[in-house]
Amino acid sequence: MTLHTPLTRLLGTRYPIIQGGMSWASSNAALALAVSRAGGLGVIAAGPMYPDALRAAIREVRAGTDAPYAVNIPLYNKRAQEHMDIAIDEGVPVIIASQGGPQKHIGRARDAGIKWLQVIASPDHAAKAQAAGVDAVIAVGLEAGGHPGPDEIGLQVLVRAVVRRVSVPVVAAGGIADGAGIAAALCLGAAGAQLGTRFLLTPEAGVCDAYKEAVLAAGVADTTLVGRGRSPVRMLRNAFAHDYLAAERRGDATTLDTMFAGSSLKQAAFDGDVQGGKVEAGQSAGLIDSVQPAGAVMEQLVAETRDALKRVAALAG
Amino acid sequence: MTLHTPLTRLLGTRYPIIQGGMSWASSNAALALAVSRAGGLGVIAAGPMYPDALRAAIREVRAGTDAPYAVNIPLYNKRAQEHMDIAIDEGVPVIIASQGGPQKHIGRARDAGIKWLQVIASPDHAAKAQAAGVDAVIAVGLEAGGHPGPDEIGLQVLVRAVVRRVSVPVVAAGGIADGAGIAAALCLGAAGAQLGTRFLLTPEAGVCDAYKEAVLAAGVADTTLVGRGRSPVRMLRNAFAHDYLAAERRGDATTLDTMFAGSSLKQAAFDGDVQGGKVEAGQSAGLIDSVQPAGAVMEQLVAETRDALKRVAALAG
Repeated sequence: MTLHTPLTRLLGTRYPIIQGGMSWASSNAALALAVSRAGGLGVIAAGPMYPDALRAAIREVRAGTDAPYAVNIPLYNKRAQEHMDIAIDEGVPVIIASQGGPQKHIGRARDAGIKWLQVIASPDHAAKAQAAGVDAVIAVGLEAGGHPGPDEIGLQVLVRAVVRRVSVPVVAAGGIADGAGIAAALCLGAAGAQLGTRFLLTPEAGVCDAYKEAVLAAGVADTTLVGRGRSPVRMLRNAFAHDYLAAERRGDATTLDTMFAGSSLKQAAFDGDVQGGKVEAGQSAGLIDSVQPAGAVMEQLVAETRDALKRVAALAG
Repeated sequence: MTLHTPLTRLLGTRYPIIQGGMSWASSNAALALAVSRAGGLGVIAAGPMYPDALRAAIREVRAGTDAPYAVNIPLYNKRAQEHMDIAIDEGVPVIIASQGGPQKHIGRARDAGIKWLQVIASPDHAAKAQAAGVDAVIAVGLEAGGHPGPDEIGLQVLVRAVVRRVSVPVVAAGGIADGAGIAAALCLGAAGAQLGTRFLLTPEAGVCDAYKEAVLAAGVADTTLVGRGRSPVRMLRNAFAHDYLAAERRGDATTLDTMFAGSSLKQAAFDGDVQGGKVEAGQSAGLIDSVQPAGAVMEQLVAETRDALKRVAALAG
C-alpha cells in the first residue's frame, strides 16, 4: 500500500511520515538513515552538532540511501548560519527550520532546489511562513516534547485552524505515536504526521539508555510544561521539573532563572542524569510500550494507519 | 447516511454526536430538544437548576421528541442527590455523570434501565468508571471549555490511551467543533464525539448574547486555564483571567483564593459581565464563525463527518 498525499508528492517519500528532529537523539546519521530507508523522512537535528559532525552525518545518510532526508536547523541557535551553509553546500533535499522565521535564509535554500518546511505552533505563524514562501508547515500541538510553543493549543484544534488558514501542506506534530493518530491527522486535513517521541524509543536514537528507560516508563500524565513565560519545554516530571514548578508556585523569579539555565537536555540525554536534567518527551510517551528499530516502527505505523483508515471507511458507507 | 458506531447502538441515536452538558447554556429544554430532534444526544445540564426547573425541562424535552436525551449531573454539586432522584423518577434514558465517582448512584440508575455515561479525564479514571459498571466514558481533553481535569492531557493522546485501557465505548470531548474533528475522533478509536462550545454558539443556548459574542470573537489561542492546583477552568482570556494569572505569577495564594471564589460563570453567562466573570469556552471557539440553530449545526456536522471519512477512505486504497 502507498499512502500518497500532497506531502509525499512534495517530498518524494513513500509515506507521509516525518521523524521529528530531536537534539542529541537524531543529531547523528543512524536514526535519519533508518527512517528514510523505510519510506519516511528521516531528520538530522543540527542543533547541538559541530559543523564537521553535521557534514559527516549528511554524507553518511546520502551514502546509505537514495531516499529523501532532511536537516532540522533551529534558527535561534548560535550556529544556525554555519548549519545552513553546510546544508545548502551539501545539497540536502529538505531543510526543516524551527524556532525563528524563515526570511533570512529561505531564498538561498530555494534557489538551491531545497524544499523548506517550517515548524510553527499558531495559525498566525503558519500564515507568515506561507507568505515567506515555505513549501509546507509542521504544526506542533502542546502535546509535543521539547518546545511546543507558548500558546498551548491542542493538536486537534491547531491542525484544523492551520489547515483553514494556509494552502500549503500541513504536517501534524505532537501527541501522535501510532497509526490511528496518523489517520486522525489525515482526517483533520493534515497531509502527514511528524512523530518525535515514538522515534526516540529506538536503538538508533542517540540518547543514553537511562533516558529511553525513563521515557518508556512514563504514562500520558507524566510530562509537564516547564518554563511558562520563558521558553516552555515539555519534559518528564522528574526531580528538576518538580523543584522548578514548586519555585514557580512560590513566584520566585530569581530561583527560576537560575534553575532553568542550570539544567539541560544534554545533562539527561548525554550524561544520563535523568533526575537533574531536562528529559524532553511528549505526552505520547504514555502510548509507547517498547524500544524497536526505527525500520520496524515505520512498518508498524504504516500498517496501523491503513487499518484505522479502513475501519472508518466502513462507517462512511 | 447513518453513522452507526457502538455509541449509537448503545444510546439509540441516529448519529454518534453528543451535545456537551453546559451549566446555564444547556440548563434548559431548548438546546437539548433541538439536538435530540436532529439525531444527536441532547443534554440538559442540571448543575445550576432548581429541582422544579429540572423536572419541567425533562418533561418538555420528552414531550417534544421520542428521541433519546440525557441529563448531566455534576456529582460534587450540593443538589446532586436531588437531581439524581428527579432524573430516575422521571425515567430519563441517559444520565451523564461528571466531577465525582459513579459508585454511590449508579446501581439505582441502572436498575431503572437508565444508561450511565461517565465523564473522565485520565485513563485511570476511565478504568475505575468501567469497573463501577458505566456504559461508556466521555474522555475530556485539555482543549475543553469549563473543567478539563488537572492532568492537562491533549485529546489526541487521551483518547488513544483510554481506548487501549477500557472496553466500553469511548466518546472524545474537547477541541472538536466540526465534522473533520469528529472523523478524527473515530480514527482514534472513539465511538463518538461530544461538542460543547459548538453548541454554545446557537440561539437555543441559554447564555446572554454578550457571552456568545465574546466566544465567537475568540481565536484558538484566546482561552487559558485558570486555577491550576485548584480546579482548573478553561475560559476566555478576559480581564478576570488576566488579573488571576498575574497574581499566580506573583505566587500570591491569598489573592488567588479570593479572586477564584469571587468570579463566577453565572456572572458572565447570566449577568453579562464578560470581563469580570468566568467566560468558559473551549479552544475550539477559534474554529467557529457563526451562531446557527442547533439543528442546522447537527446537519452540518454530519455532512462534514461524511466528507472527511470519504476523503481519507480514498487514501486507504
